[in-house]
Amino acid sequence: MTEDESRIQHFAAEREALNETVMRYAGRNIKRFYNIDSQVYHNGALPAKTKEMLGLVASLVLRCDDCINYHLIRCHEEGVTSEELEEVIAVGLIVGGSIVIPHMRRAFQAWDDLQSTNADAKQEM
Amino acid sequence: MTEDESRIQHFAAEREALNETVMRYAGRNIKRFYNIDSQVYHNGALPAKTKEMLGLVASLVLRCDDCINYHLIRCHEEGVTSEELEEVIAVGLIVGGSIVIPHMRRAFQAWDDLQSTNADAKQEM
Amino acid sequence: MTEDESRIQHFAAEREALNETVMRYAGRNIKRFYNIDSQVYHNGALPAKTKEMLGLVASLVLRCDDCINYHLIRCHEEGVTSEELEEVIAVGLIVGGSIVIPHMRRAFQAWDDLQSTNADAKQEM
Amino acid sequence: MTEDESRIQHFAAEREALNETVMRYAGRNIKRFYNIDSQVYHNGALPAKTKEMLGLVASLVLRCDDCINYHLIRCHEEGVTSEELEEVIAVGLIVGGSIVIPHMRRAFQAWDDLQSTNADAKQEM
Amino acid sequence: MTEDESRIQHFAAEREALNETVMRYAGRNIKRFYNIDSQVYHNGALPAKTKEMLGLVASLVLRCDDCINYHLIRCHEEGVTSEELEEVIAVGLIVGGSIVIPHMRRAFQAWDDLQSTNADAKQEM
Amino acid sequence: MTEDESRIQHFAAEREALNETVMRYAGRNIKRFYNIDSQVYHNGALPAKTKEMLGLVASLVLRCDDCINYHLIRCHEEGVTSEELEEVIAVGLIVGGSIVIPHMRRAFQAWDDLQSTNADAKQEM
Repeated sequence: MTEDESRIQHFAAEREALNETVMRYAGRNIKRFYNIDSQVYHNGALPAKTKEMLGLVASLVLRCDDCINYHLIRCHEEGVTSEELEEVIAVGLIVGGSIVIPHMRRAFQAWDDLQSTNADAKQEM
Repeated sequence: MTEDESRIQHFAAEREALNETVMRYAGRNIKRFYNIDSQVYHNGALPAKTKEMLGLVASLVLRCDDCINYHLIRCHEEGVTSEELEEVIAVGLIVGGSIVIPHMRRAFQAWDDLQSTNADAKQEM
Repeated sequence: MTEDESRIQHFAAEREALNETVMRYAGRNIKRFYNIDSQVYHNGALPAKTKEMLGLVASLVLRCDDCINYHLIRCHEEGVTSEELEEVIAVGLIVGGSIVIPHMRRAFQAWDDLQSTNADAKQEM
Repeated sequence: MTEDESRIQHFAAEREALNETVMRYAGRNIKRFYNIDSQVYHNGALPAKTKEMLGLVASLVLRCDDCINYHLIRCHEEGVTSEELEEVIAVGLIVGGSIVIPHMRRAFQAWDDLQSTNADAKQEM
Repeated sequence: MTEDESRIQHFAAEREALNETVMRYAGRNIKRFYNIDSQVYHNGALPAKTKEMLGLVASLVLRCDDCINYHLIRCHEEGVTSEELEEVIAVGLIVGGSIVIPHMRRAFQAWDDLQSTNADAKQEM
Repeated sequence: MTEDESRIQHFAAEREALNETVMRYAGRNIKRFYNIDSQVYHNGALPAKTKEMLGLVASLVLRCDDCINYHLIRCHEEGVTSEELEEVIAVGLIVGGSIVIPHMRRAFQAWDDLQSTNADAKQEM
């Protein structure tokens, strides 16, 4: 396993641990928000894949690294290709401007890590 | 023609007039930015339809009415259905929060106008 | 009735009409979001009055005039005094900076309209 | 006098009227903020002209039309040329992205109005 | 002492060290801004406790972790309960949307640390 | 060499490594954006020094630490003095509000590091 893979894995693990803390304090409204936040990306008139790309571009222009990482993992799971991802990110860069660049850099690095995880997994089979 | 149609038409006409003013002042960098801003929504690994939905959700969470109007017109041209549009807007609302609501209200109104323009056009045929 | 009062009344009427358009298109997620968006300002551990001031300061620093107007009306209904309002706005101004000033100007004007509506109503009794 | 000139004049007049309303409600902190907000653009290690360009680019990327208008008027007073202005706006566009475009359009239109006011004034002499 | 407590203490110590660097460079305007930034949270028509909750919700929707941490410490000092805090954060989440979630996660974790510091302090007595 | 210098050097090295990853994925639009993003700060009607100060203030009010660091390095190279820098930052603070403070703190610290690098370099000659 490379250092890069553990970065993404570290993000996912920390995210889960913190969500547990949230749930200890959360009242009804926060819990219901979490529920809608999950439903909104499910298959519907648009497939989950498209919705994850929508979530990614929204996270990019709002410049939230954690949100970007989450949607990159989901895009990877939904089978978004590197060519498609590049085009999603290009839209985010043009809409959001150069202020998006530091987040774009980290996004491509995380995507690169996810790709190599994939390649390693294939090799192990 | 309804009052609503002329609102969208007014937006498009004013946009064109102001772009002419921009071009009288614009140097090389602004002109090249305009060019990329057009290219990035063209068909590629992802179809133009998907890219316009990406542009719409990005405009929604950044809360720019003019950008929202522009991408609504383009989504309409690319054949986005009302069910698909509702799901794009739902993602924008959940990512961006209640601060998005005033823009969402105007977006659905503009979409409603675009739909009725369509219905009128069909009736005329 | 002064011109100013009708401005606030115009805002409230337009808001209602547009919400009807939203509801014609809205699916389950948007409807549920509207529901939470209402619940979150109800009396709880904190009184509704405090929550409306929280909504106002959040709207100010995010610079959303429609949201500011809505929370000003609600603050007025909950009995926020002009001295209290000034302190809420001062926090918003310091946190958000001079970019907040144009919204602050319109907020004080709207508040002034709400106060004079009140004075007129008292006089009529 | 053209219609365009009165638009800028209308902005300046409305701004003054609303500031009077602010001052009727403002406590010590808001008043002191207004004071710093004025001081920070005075001549110092950097000339006022440079500081107004800084204020303009900050207003552009934060997408505040009223703030943009104010700094355009001040840039015009400080002798910023159209070539210099175009470069300030180009930086704002690249940093802030296409979401800045609607504000850029209105900014160039307002600048155009200010230039023609100038030309008229010279002709009258 | 837990690892968590030292995280908050580390934040407070680093904040103080960096403020000293600011003060070595700061001219009159920055110093006066710091002064207003302190005054605006003092007891007035509204108690400091309410103002700290206003500062917290503004920091949440603007997604500034350092500002959130600072206001969490102050809310804790002013006797805000966990139930009250949850409601402030719920308002911030609904206004700001899912983009606020990563900051909310860290906010509840920091609050949890502050609570356990408190419990430890009581136990030591 | 101090610990502080290596922090800035670390930033520059990491930035370069990540840009290489970007370039492996980037299509034509992203590459062209990078090109404009470089051109826009070149000498023109305004000198590069002024443009870097514009880039800095825009980065400050948009609160992007990586962008701030980059423009601080460039401002230092273009001979911006500490007095000039303080005034650029003061404009950013007043426009953007207290939410800018954590970024301002880190900006002055990075500037302080750049100054001491300079002093060390002079001493070595």
